[in-house]
Amino acid sequence: MAALDGQSNVVSSEVEDGEDMVVNPWEVTAKSGGKIDYDKLIEKFGCQRLESSHIRRIESLTSRSAHVFLRRGVFFAHRDLEEILDLYERGEKFYLYTGRGPSSEALHLGHLVPFMFTKYLQDAFKVPLVIQLTDDEKCMWKNLPIEECKRLARENAKDIIACGFDITRTFMFSDFDYVGGAFYENMIRVSKCVTFNKVVGIFGFTPEDHIGKISFPPVQAVPSFPSSFPHLFSGKDNLRCLIPCAIDQDPYFRMTRDVAPRIGYQKPALIESSFFPALQGETGKMSASDPNSAIYVTDSPKDIKNKVNRYAFSGGRDSVELHRKYGANLEVDISIKYLGFFLEDDDEFEHIKTEYGAGRMLTGEVKKRLIEVLSDMVERHRKARASVTEEMVDAFMAVRPLPNMFG
Amino acid sequence: MAALDGQSNVVSSEVEDGEDMVVNPWEVTAKSGGKIDYDKLIEKFGCQRLESSHIRRIESLTSRSAHVFLRRGVFFAHRDLEEILDLYERGEKFYLYTGRGPSSEALHLGHLVPFMFTKYLQDAFKVPLVIQLTDDEKCMWKNLPIEECKRLARENAKDIIACGFDITRTFMFSDFDYVGGAFYENMIRVSKCVTFNKVVGIFGFTPEDHIGKISFPPVQAVPSFPSSFPHLFSGKDNLRCLIPCAIDQDPYFRMTRDVAPRIGYQKPALIESSFFPALQGETGKMSASDPNSAIYVTDSPKDIKNKVNRYAFSGGRDSVELHRKYGANLEVDISIKYLGFFLEDDDEFEHIKTEYGAGRMLTGEVKKRLIEVLSDMVERHRKARASVTEEMVDAFMAVRPLPNMFG
Repeated sequence: MAALDGQSNVVSSEVEDGEDMVVNPWEVTAKSGGKIDYDKLIEKFGCQRLESSHIRRIESLTSRSAHVFLRRGVFFAHRDLEEILDLYERGEKFYLYTGRGPSSEALHLGHLVPFMFTKYLQDAFKVPLVIQLTDDEKCMWKNLPIEECKRLARENAKDIIACGFDITRTFMFSDFDYVGGAFYENMIRVSKCVTFNKVVGIFGFTPEDHIGKISFPPVQAVPSFPSSFPHLFSGKDNLRCLIPCAIDQDPYFRMTRDVAPRIGYQKPALIESSFFPALQGETGKMSASDPNSAIYVTDSPKDIKNKVNRYAFSGGRDSVELHRKYGANLEVDISIKYLGFFLEDDDEFEHIKTEYGAGRMLTGEVKKRLIEVLSDMVERHRKARASVTEEMVDAFMAVRPLPNMFG
Repeated sequence: MAALDGQSNVVSSEVEDGEDMVVNPWEVTAKSGGKIDYDKLIEKFGCQRLESSHIRRIESLTSRSAHVFLRRGVFFAHRDLEEILDLYERGEKFYLYTGRGPSSEALHLGHLVPFMFTKYLQDAFKVPLVIQLTDDEKCMWKNLPIEECKRLARENAKDIIACGFDITRTFMFSDFDYVGGAFYENMIRVSKCVTFNKVVGIFGFTPEDHIGKISFPPVQAVPSFPSSFPHLFSGKDNLRCLIPCAIDQDPYFRMTRDVAPRIGYQKPALIESSFFPALQGETGKMSASDPNSAIYVTDSPKDIKNKVNRYAFSGGRDSVELHRKYGANLEVDISIKYLGFFLEDDDEFEHIKTEYGAGRMLTGEVKKRLIEVLSDMVERHRKARASVTEEMVDAFMAVRPLPNMFG
């Protein structure tokens, strides 16, 4: 997946006339200086807003408090989530599907968001999970050699495993390894239902694009169908699928949901997140070529401290006097945004927002707390990843039944 | 392959302005009442004419007389055949690649042409052969269910095996079975080099075509590359490939040859046949929906007799008197065309042409001889096919090394 992780490539380049923003799996662009309008996106894409009633229902069904990404509105939209909750309430199960396009060695914090959330869902609902590594996609979009994409897929697999997935309920695969058989049959079934004009409309392809790109959407579509995994879901053709992803992936699954009934399959349900902002702010650019635009899971505590202190866009005022008088602008403050993702303590988070917003806390103090939170998190990830062996990668990626996946 | 067998779908429908004919893998159309102009096709496609010097050289290198399809000009065009003969003369080897799109239960005689010729090449040069059954293609173009295409692939495999291929040198595969791994990697390598505009130019696709069609050409392209078959050709990345096929398949391999050097691969060589005509004549239509347009390998001797006598277009004159006076028009006589394909005895064939052309032989006598030739051939095929077991199909299609394939 291009950015199922929701990395915010909010670039300042021109947006087409009449469009406030462009959001597709390969481009997230807002009008110069503007922000992504998530309400408009919900309207444009035709998905639903995630309501507090959904969150309460998830808490009630899973007998645990909702994940911080639900409480803070990081995951804010959905498609057919009620149906998933209904069937779960009736004692039925579903499966989860998420993924990553392995285009870089080191992941940044935005890349971890869908995996942290998916791990929560897996633990809370006790359901199986398939994780797709779209090494074929990255080979085509980033023009990387196949061997390099396959290597990056394995490296990224280690970071994903480090998020703590349950190996008895998780099947991870790379497209170069797994495409074929029932999976390829479903690719053909989907491809037959989608014209070139249709993918132009959905993804913005042009006649100058190569046919590898044009034929890729079915590859990301078919993990939504249980019959693509006969070793897991044989005889369970009606098992529903829930996809946690960033909302820029919605086009893939709009297409998938459009095709599903035409080939006799269930539509996948979705739970969709906003984009993780760059250090420079939501109107800035988080770029793989600019390591200072993001915190990476490989950053040292010193790197984190420097990046946050130097680059994290501040909503604080120009002078201490003005700050004390007017308070910080929390809407644009990246430290507050990042704490919203990763500071789990609701009381502390509210306290910081209140104090900072009233000007009683200074940017330096907020950044100090953010540096602690991020350093802890990155250090935990570093340790977990260091313990992931090649054998564990092989084990997660082995094509095998998961006999206790619903247990 | 759509019509690697060269079935002549010469239809009488309109041809685009300024075009005398349309020849692509899914359509072979000549101007109403006209014939395919093979000289023009060679010029348009940019391939070379097969010369008698090539045929003499093949005879000399293989120490056997040339196949009747070479002697009679059925295979009439090529690309880089000299390079294949040069390397063979130096003591090097190559491999053969041919295929079939399994869209019908019963094959007709035109379907057998490439396989009869490929068997001759395999025997004469003692080289390995890969046979692709494009069940995925037929599922898309004929809109057949996948299970039906897979069943037809196995049924057609039996007819192909009945042509006498050497199991120690032959790997047959269906796309639904075999796509994946190294084969899929090569599909992606090729796809990256071909834009939508390019396939529009080569194959005549339109934006209303589904993306399955648009993404199919790489599937037929990559068996041209030895690295698509690691179980056969591991470490032999520079092994050359020779493709016997009907000339309507040339677009696939023009594309393949264009892409090959850009991805570090050798271009496949080609040896290309003309189309096998319908019983009603070269301007008529050989249609799957009209069983009287072709002789099928399942036809009884009585069927064959009836079809030839009733439908085989005659170049004989309107009355015996006129026939004796002017002789038959051999250019349009289908019995003569069919004997040209299947009557191996050159002296007898020349004798029939001379006598018939001079009016001393009547159409009925020529048809009688053709009925004998076809009945013998179909009966031989019927017997051979009856002895092909499911286990033999499995054996030909097993993904396995062929240790003595060059022996």
